[in-house]
Amino acid sequence: MRIRIAVDAMGGDYAPHNVIVGALDALRDTGNRFELILVGNEQRIRQEIHRIGQNDLAYTVVDAPETIEMAETPTAALKAKKNSSIAVGVQLQKEGKANAFVSAGNTGAVMSASTLILGRIPGVARPTIGAFFPSEGGACLLLDAGANVDCSPRHLLQFAAMGTIYTRCMLNYHNPTVGLLSIGEESTKGNERTLKAFRLLSNSKLNFIGNIEGRDILKGRAQVVVCDGFVGNIVLKFGESLLTVLKTRFRNYGRRNFLRRAWISLTYGTINKLLGDFDYQVYGGVPFLGVNGVSIVGHGGSTPKAIKNMILRAEEMVKKNIHKEIEHTIREV
Amino acid sequence: MRIRIAVDAMGGDYAPHNVIVGALDALRDTGNRFELILVGNEQRIRQEIHRIGQNDLAYTVVDAPETIEMAETPTAALKAKKNSSIAVGVQLQKEGKANAFVSAGNTGAVMSASTLILGRIPGVARPTIGAFFPSEGGACLLLDAGANVDCSPRHLLQFAAMGTIYTRCMLNYHNPTVGLLSIGEESTKGNERTLKAFRLLSNSKLNFIGNIEGRDILKGRAQVVVCDGFVGNIVLKFGESLLTVLKTRFRNYGRRNFLRRAWISLTYGTINKLLGDFDYQVYGGVPFLGVNGVSIVGHGGSTPKAIKNMILRAEEMVKKNIHKEIEHTIREV
Repeated sequence: MRIRIAVDAMGGDYAPHNVIVGALDALRDTGNRFELILVGNEQRIRQEIHRIGQNDLAYTVVDAPETIEMAETPTAALKAKKNSSIAVGVQLQKEGKANAFVSAGNTGAVMSASTLILGRIPGVARPTIGAFFPSEGGACLLLDAGANVDCSPRHLLQFAAMGTIYTRCMLNYHNPTVGLLSIGEESTKGNERTLKAFRLLSNSKLNFIGNIEGRDILKGRAQVVVCDGFVGNIVLKFGESLLTVLKTRFRNYGRRNFLRRAWISLTYGTINKLLGDFDYQVYGGVPFLGVNGVSIVGHGGSTPKAIKNMILRAEEMVKKNIHKEIEHTIREV
Repeated sequence: MRIRIAVDAMGGDYAPHNVIVGALDALRDTGNRFELILVGNEQRIRQEIHRIGQNDLAYTVVDAPETIEMAETPTAALKAKKNSSIAVGVQLQKEGKANAFVSAGNTGAVMSASTLILGRIPGVARPTIGAFFPSEGGACLLLDAGANVDCSPRHLLQFAAMGTIYTRCMLNYHNPTVGLLSIGEESTKGNERTLKAFRLLSNSKLNFIGNIEGRDILKGRAQVVVCDGFVGNIVLKFGESLLTVLKTRFRNYGRRNFLRRAWISLTYGTINKLLGDFDYQVYGGVPFLGVNGVSIVGHGGSTPKAIKNMILRAEEMVKKNIHKEIEHTIREV
C-alpha cells in the first residue's frame, strides 16, 4: 500500500501557491510513488491546481474551510477553529487515513495539534522540535528548538535519545555523538539543570561526548546537541539573523555606486555558494519528535523546493518507522 | 592628580609582548596623560620594554612573580597563586595605588579577584560582565555574558540598571532602551525567570521595551539586552564562531586554485570592511560592572590595539565615576 501524506495547503506565507507547486512536484518527480492529500479550502486549492494545470497526479483534496494564521496563538486558534487545515490534517493521521502530516504553517499550532490529537509515544515526557545547523561534519540536529521552554534533566536526556534515533535513521549517522550545550567543557560547568542532565547522559547508553559550548555547534563537535527550548530558540533565531544582517550589509554596500553594485553581485554568488548549507530549505523542514505519528513543520517562507523536500522526508520517516524506533529506545533510556 | 591604571602585563595569549606594546602606545598617544603601572614578572617586563625601546614614558613596574594561565580554574588559581599579576594588580586598586585594572588574562580569575578584593557596590547582588554586539543602531551591550549562570529575576533587573548606566555614560546613549532576551515578544512568552523579570522591569524606571528575540540582537531593537549568563555566554560564543566559520570557508574555497585565491583575497577585504564592527577590538574589552572599582577584561587574543583601547576605556570609566553612578541607580531600582 502506498504511503499517504496529508499536506497543509494553507500553511506558510506563500500558501496555497508554494505548497501546491511543491507538493505536485514531489508527486511528479517520484512518479506518483505516494498518495498526496491536500488539506485546506477546497475551492482555493482546486483553483490553484487548475491554474498550474496538473491532471495526471495522484492527489485528493480534503476540505478544511478555516485557516490558522501565522501570528495566531496556537492553543486559542486550535480551539476556535475546529476545521482548520492543521486540525483536519493531523486528524486524518489519527483516523488512519494518512501516514504523515506536513505543514509550513503556524509551528506552535502544528505542535499542539499533533500532541493533542496523535498523543505522545509511550514513555516520552515531552515531544520536541529540532533544528538543523550546518557544521563541518554534516548537519547537526539541535533540540529542543523552542517547543519546551522549561525542561527537566530527564527531558534533556529524552531529547538526546530522540535526536540519536532521528539522525541515525534519517541522516545515516552510525553512532551519533551527543553534546550537552553548556558554558564550558568541564562536567562542573553549567546551570542546575545541565549539571544534572550531564550525569543522566553519562550513565546512558547514548554516545555522549560531554558538554559543548556555543562555539562548538558549527564546528561539528557533536551531531546531536541538546538544550532547553529557551536556549535553543534564541540560538536558532540569532543564527538566522546573523546571515540576514550579512546579506543586508552586502546589498547596502552595493547600492552606493555602479562599480560596487557589480562587485557585490559577483561576491554575493560566492557567498551563497559557500553558505548553501545554511539554507534551511536543504533540510526540508524540522521533525516534531515524540508524537505518535509523523509531523513535519517547515519555515513560513518555504519555497516549493522546501515543501517538496519536506514531503519526501515525511515519506522516508514513515518508511523507516521512526516513531516505533523512538518508542523502543525511550524504553531503554 | 593623574589617573593611575594598573595593567596585567602577563594576561592574554600574546603576553607580555602585546600588552606592553599596547600600553606604551596608549601612554605615547595621550602624551603621558595617565600613569601606567605594569604588573607582572618584573624581569620579563623590563626585557620586553628594553627590546621595544621606550624611555620617555610615565610607567612603573610592580613585580608579581606568578602568572595565572588562561586554562586554570579561577578560584583555585587565585588561592594557589597569591602573587599572581591579577591578584596583585587588583590589590593595587584596593590600596588606592591605582584607579583601575585592565587584563586580557583569565576572565574568571579577574572577575573573582575583583569581587573578592574590591567587593561589591552597596546594593548590587551580583557583579556582571557584559559583551558588545554590533547592531544597526550602534553597539548593543548584552549582559550577563557568562559571569552569573543561574540568575534570579532581581539579578536581571540589576543587570539592566547597570547596563543602562554604562551605555549612557560610556556610549552616550541618551535613554538606553532595555530588552529582555526571550523567545517571543509577548509578555506571556519566556521561562519562569524571564516572566518574573518582565514584571520587575515593567515596574522600573528603566526604558524597558519588553521581550526581544534572538533575531533582534543584531537588528538593534534594544541598546541593552539582559539575560542570564548561561544564555548570554552561549549566544556570544556562537556568534563569534559563525564569523570564524565564514572566514574559514572563504579561505578554503580560495585554496583550490590560483584564480579563486585571487578572487577570495579581493572578496575578503570587502567582507572585513563590512564586518568591521563585529571585531571585538573596537570595543576595547568588556567592563565588569558592580564591583567597587574599575575592572576591564579583554579577549585572550588581544592585539596591542585592543589593549590600548581597553586602557583608554578604563581611564574614561574612572573619569566618569561609573561605579558611583551605579551605586546611585541601584538604590533607586
